Amino acid sequence: MTHDNSETLRRFIETVWNRGDLSNLGDFVGESYEIRHDPGDPWDGKTLTREGFAERVRVSRAPCPDQAFASVDMFDGGDRIAMTWTWRATHLGEIAGFAPTGKTIKMSGATVYFFKDGKICGHWQIADRLSVFRQLSASG
Amino acid sequence: MTHDNSETLRRFIETVWNRGDLSNLGDFVGESYEIRHDPGDPWDGKTLTREGFAERVRVSRAPCPDQAFASVDMFDGGDRIAMTWTWRATHLGEIAGFAPTGKTIKMSGATVYFFKDGKICGHWQIADRLSVFRQLSASG
Repeated sequence: MTHDNSETLRRFIETVWNRGDLSNLGDFVGESYEIRHDPGDPWDGKTLTREGFAERVRVSRAPCPDQAFASVDMFDGGDRIAMTWTWRATHLGEIAGFAPTGKTIKMSGATVYFFKDGKICGHWQIADRLSVFRQLSASG
Repeated sequence: MTHDNSETLRRFIETVWNRGDLSNLGDFVGESYEIRHDPGDPWDGKTLTREGFAERVRVSRAPCPDQAFASVDMFDGGDRIAMTWTWRATHLGEIAGFAPTGKTIKMSGATVYFFKDGKICGHWQIADRLSVFRQLSASG
């Protein structure tokens, strides 16, 4: 059985991360999800259950509920897909100790997603957190 | 005529960035090199001549001459290749105002390299500069 991992990834980003819809999380995410590398992310190095992953999405989205990832480019390596992306959100809740400002924050990054049996089971990610830190510091 | 862009990229990283050998730069880099996206890099957004690119390598390597990039994973998209990487260097010269400490600095990142006629003509990159900033701040 073959899986369209690229299409699964596109729907995952739109449904789970952009809309925060966790009702069909099992369509996208495996029972175990390993955050192999994600420096600066609170869950870096952790292996999460699907419920743990849902909690990560809820906590991450809380301060910026209108957040939107947009794919810049995608590289299909079969059981792993690399995606470069941009992100923007309105800063409506506390982030890393910075009080909400109502301003737009922008970030970019690159992520390798790992698949098993058509479900995402982990990632390796770099996000441009220094730019976010500078935007938050400037508006504080 | 086909080109082995993956092999060119591996040799480029080892020769140019790791060893600082610019004697055959034209084997790797086109006459024009566009830094499409590289937040935090002094040359972000610039289009460089080959000599301008050589100068970028010299200036970038000066504070950390033993620097070494290691490929983590590579995604061959034909005329564009995505590479995830780690980097380590001994901090022997001033970086962004931080005096040299002699300590090892580590970083990771992801880069999409663009090719034309077998030569690299630009990149889109994210580096984990926040981790570097924290390592430099901690040792200062």
